[in-house]
Amino acid sequence: MLESLKEEVFQANLELKRQNVVIYTWGNVSGITEDRKYMVIKPSGIAYEKMKAEDMVVVELETGKVADGKWNPSSDTETHLVLYRHFPTLRGVVHTHSTYAVSFAQAGKAIKALGTTHADYFYGDIPCTRALREEEVKEAYERNTGNVIVECIEELKLDPLAVPGIIVKNHGPFAYGNSPAKAVENAVVLEKAAEMAFRTLLLNPNASMEQYILDKHYFRKHGKNAYYGQKSQ
Amino acid sequence: MLESLKEEVFQANLELKRQNVVIYTWGNVSGITEDRKYMVIKPSGIAYEKMKAEDMVVVELETGKVADGKWNPSSDTETHLVLYRHFPTLRGVVHTHSTYAVSFAQAGKAIKALGTTHADYFYGDIPCTRALREEEVKEAYERNTGNVIVECIEELKLDPLAVPGIIVKNHGPFAYGNSPAKAVENAVVLEKAAEMAFRTLLLNPNASMEQYILDKHYFRKHGKNAYYGQKSQ
Amino acid sequence: MLESLKEEVFQANLELKRQNVVIYTWGNVSGITEDRKYMVIKPSGIAYEKMKAEDMVVVELETGKVADGKWNPSSDTETHLVLYRHFPTLRGVVHTHSTYAVSFAQAGKAIKALGTTHADYFYGDIPCTRALREEEVKEAYERNTGNVIVECIEELKLDPLAVPGIIVKNHGPFAYGNSPAKAVENAVVLEKAAEMAFRTLLLNPNASMEQYILDKHYFRKHGKNAYYGQKSQ
Amino acid sequence: MLESLKEEVFQANLELKRQNVVIYTWGNVSGITEDRKYMVIKPSGIAYEKMKAEDMVVVELETGKVADGKWNPSSDTETHLVLYRHFPTLRGVVHTHSTYAVSFAQAGKAIKALGTTHADYFYGDIPCTRALREEEVKEAYERNTGNVIVECIEELKLDPLAVPGIIVKNHGPFAYGNSPAKAVENAVVLEKAAEMAFRTLLLNPNASMEQYILDKHYFRKHGKNAYYGQKSQ
Repeated sequence: MLESLKEEVFQANLELKRQNVVIYTWGNVSGITEDRKYMVIKPSGIAYEKMKAEDMVVVELETGKVADGKWNPSSDTETHLVLYRHFPTLRGVVHTHSTYAVSFAQAGKAIKALGTTHADYFYGDIPCTRALREEEVKEAYERNTGNVIVECIEELKLDPLAVPGIIVKNHGPFAYGNSPAKAVENAVVLEKAAEMAFRTLLLNPNASMEQYILDKHYFRKHGKNAYYGQKSQ
Repeated sequence: MLESLKEEVFQANLELKRQNVVIYTWGNVSGITEDRKYMVIKPSGIAYEKMKAEDMVVVELETGKVADGKWNPSSDTETHLVLYRHFPTLRGVVHTHSTYAVSFAQAGKAIKALGTTHADYFYGDIPCTRALREEEVKEAYERNTGNVIVECIEELKLDPLAVPGIIVKNHGPFAYGNSPAKAVENAVVLEKAAEMAFRTLLLNPNASMEQYILDKHYFRKHGKNAYYGQKSQ
Repeated sequence: MLESLKEEVFQANLELKRQNVVIYTWGNVSGITEDRKYMVIKPSGIAYEKMKAEDMVVVELETGKVADGKWNPSSDTETHLVLYRHFPTLRGVVHTHSTYAVSFAQAGKAIKALGTTHADYFYGDIPCTRALREEEVKEAYERNTGNVIVECIEELKLDPLAVPGIIVKNHGPFAYGNSPAKAVENAVVLEKAAEMAFRTLLLNPNASMEQYILDKHYFRKHGKNAYYGQKSQ
Repeated sequence: MLESLKEEVFQANLELKRQNVVIYTWGNVSGITEDRKYMVIKPSGIAYEKMKAEDMVVVELETGKVADGKWNPSSDTETHLVLYRHFPTLRGVVHTHSTYAVSFAQAGKAIKALGTTHADYFYGDIPCTRALREEEVKEAYERNTGNVIVECIEELKLDPLAVPGIIVKNHGPFAYGNSPAKAVENAVVLEKAAEMAFRTLLLNPNASMEQYILDKHYFRKHGKNAYYGQKSQ
C-alpha cells in the first residue's frame, strides 16, 4: 500500500511541474494512507527532474517522525500534518508559490468567487488567513501555519472539501482534496481563479456574483444531484 | 455524413487545447448536420488526451435526446441547442473559460471594438449578456443560458455571423461560426481581443475606435467586396 | 537574386511565428531587391505552416503590380510600398498584431523610451500616428496607412533606421530595418519595449529616462563609435 | 581550472535562456577563479544558439584586459569587474533584461519584500539604485554602473550574498551569488519576486510584510540554523 501511495504522491508532484504552478523546488504534495497512520510527502529541496517515487518520505501522522525514507521530508511537513489531523476527509494536500495566488497572499486579500469557473471547484470565496503573530512564528512556524489555516476554516465554518484551498497571508496557497491528484487539480484551478479575479478587479473593483449562480455551478458538479461528467467515472 | 462531422467536431475540440484556450475539460465544441437534424458535441468531462472521434455524442436538435454515443453529452448541450435552433446560419458553437474573456464576463463588461484586430473578425463590440435571474437558473440553467444569449443578440439586432461571439455574465465566452473550425478560430480571436482590450483600458480608459475604421477592416475580410486572402481559398 | 530574397523573406516570416508575435496569418514581412525595383512579400492569408519560399510574391515597387507569383500579395502590400518609396534606407518592413504594441495602438499612445532595453534599439519614443480620416480610409486605406506613417516620421524628423518602428492608431505596429531579418528583430523588440512600458506606467505613471542615458545606450550599439558585439560580425 | 570555469559560465548562460529571462543576446553571466585573478564572461553579442564553452572570454580582474579568448567580452564587463573587486564573497554575477524587473527599474522603484517567496532568497527589499549622472555616463558608463551598485549596497549596509540582487534605475537587474549557477538562480527568483510584487501592488498599494516573517523564511534556508533541504546537499 505504501508503495502505491508513494507512486501516487510522486506523480502528483510531477503534475505540479507540468501544470506550471511551481519552479525549482517550490511546491510539495502529500497523501495519506487509508488508515490515516502515515503521510507520504515530497523530500525537501530535491530537484523535480531527479526525483523518483522511492524518494518520497513516509511520516507518522501522530508523531511527525520519519518512518521510512532516506531524505528529510518537505520543510512544510508540519503544516500538512496539522491539516490531516484536523480534517479527516482530506486525503491530499498541496502547497505552491503559484504567482497569482501569491499576489493575493501578499496583498492579504481573499480570492472572491466572481464566476462559474471558480464556482465549479470552490463553493465560495477562497479565504486569506490572518498573518501569524511573532510568537507563533518563533515557536513553531510550520505547525502554526497549519493552525491559522484551521482557525480560518473553522471561523468561516467551511467544509475543506467544498472550498478546497486557502491562501496564507504573505505566503501563498494551500489546496487539498480527497486524493493527491485532486489536491493538485484544486491548486491549479485556485491559481486560474486568482488570475481571473485579479484581472476582473482591475476592470471592475465592485464585481460580484449572485449566490444562486454559485449554488448552481457548484452543485452541478458536486453532491448527490451532480450531473456533470459521466456516471461511470 | 455523421462520421465526418464527428471527426470535424473532434478535431475542433483538440484545436481548442492546442490554442491554449482551455485547460482540463473546460471547453466544448459542437457542429450540426447539413439538414440541421442532429448536433454532434463533445462528451461531458472526458479528458482531451483520451478522447477519440467516436466518443463524440450525437443529439437530436429538436428533442435534445442522445441519438448515438455511449457518453453523456457536454453539460452545456442545451445552450448549444438553443443557439442552433434560433440562428439557422450557425454551423459550429464553442464554449470556453479562456481567462481574459472570463475576466470581462466576471466584470460584467462588453469587449469593446477598439482596433483592427477585433474588427477583422467582429463587426462591433462583443456584448456581455445580463445575469440570469434566480428562477431562470433553477428552472433550466443551460437552456436559459442559451435564451439570454439569444435575447442579447436580438435586442442589439446583431447578426451572429457578423459578431460571432458573446460573453455570458459571471460565466464566460461563447463563439460561433459557419463550421466547428471557424467557431474555434472565433473563440481564439475573442480571447486575443479581450487581452488587448484589457490592456488598452488600463492605458486609456476612454479608448475608442471610429466606426469607419471598423467598417473598413470588417468588410476587407467579409462580404462580397472582401479582398483579403486568396480567391481560391 | 530574387530566389535568395524570397528565401530571406520566407525565413523572416517564419521567425515572426517562432518569436510569438503573430498568430494565424496576422503578420507579414517584406524585403526589397538591391536595385529597389522589386519588393518580395508574404502572400495574403496563407497559413505559415503550409507556406514555402516559392509562395512569396514579387511586386514592382513603382507600379505595385505583381511581377511574379501565383498568389495575391499581403493585403498590406500598399503600405509596405509607400514606406520603401519614401525611405531609401529601408530594406525590410514588418507588420504584426503583437498584443502589447496593439494595446498602445488602441490606446492611441506612443511607447515612451523609459529604459536601456528600448534605447538599445530605438533612439527615442516609438511614436503613434494619428487616426486615418474617413476619406483616407475610403479612398485608399492601405496606401494612406503608409502615408500617415510617413507623415508622422517626417513631422517628428525621425530617421526610420534610428527609430525603426511605429504604431498606427487603432491598428498596430510596423517595424523596419536594413534587412527583412533585422526588421523582424525590431518588431520583436518593439513588442518587448511595449510590454515593459505598459507595466512601468502601471507602477509609475510619471516614469521617464534622461536623454544622456538614451544617447549612451543607443550609440553603444549604433554608429561609428559603437562598441557592442564583435568587429567581424 | 580555467576550462572548468569556462564550462560552468557557459552552462550558466544557457540556463538564463532556458529559464526565459533573456531573449536574443540580452544577458550575461560571469564567474571568477578561486584566486580571484581571472574573470570568465560571455562574449559580446554572440547568439546563445551558436555559443560554445570555448567562446567564453577570460579577463584579468585587476586590469580588465582580455587574457584569453578570441572575442570581445560582454559590453558589461566593467560592471562585473567592479562588483568582484568590491565584494570578495561574490563568485558569480548575472545581468538580464527580464521584463518585470526592468519594469521596476524603469519605474525607479525597489522590489519590496512582500512575501515568503521573496524572503526565501532575498533578506529584504531588492533596492533600486539612483540614476547615473551625466558625467558618470560619459566618463565610464559601465564602470560607473558598477560604482552606483556598490554605492547603493554600501549606503544600505547590505550583505550582497544576503540580498543577492539589485536593479539599476532605467536599466535592469543584476544578481549575484557564490557561483555562476547560484547567481542565475537568484536572477530568476528576482524576476519572479518582481512579477509577484507588481501584481500585489495593483491589488493593494499598501501591502507589506512583518520583519519577523522575513527573518523566519530567510533563516530557514540560510545560515547555521537553516533546516530547508538535505544536509548532504
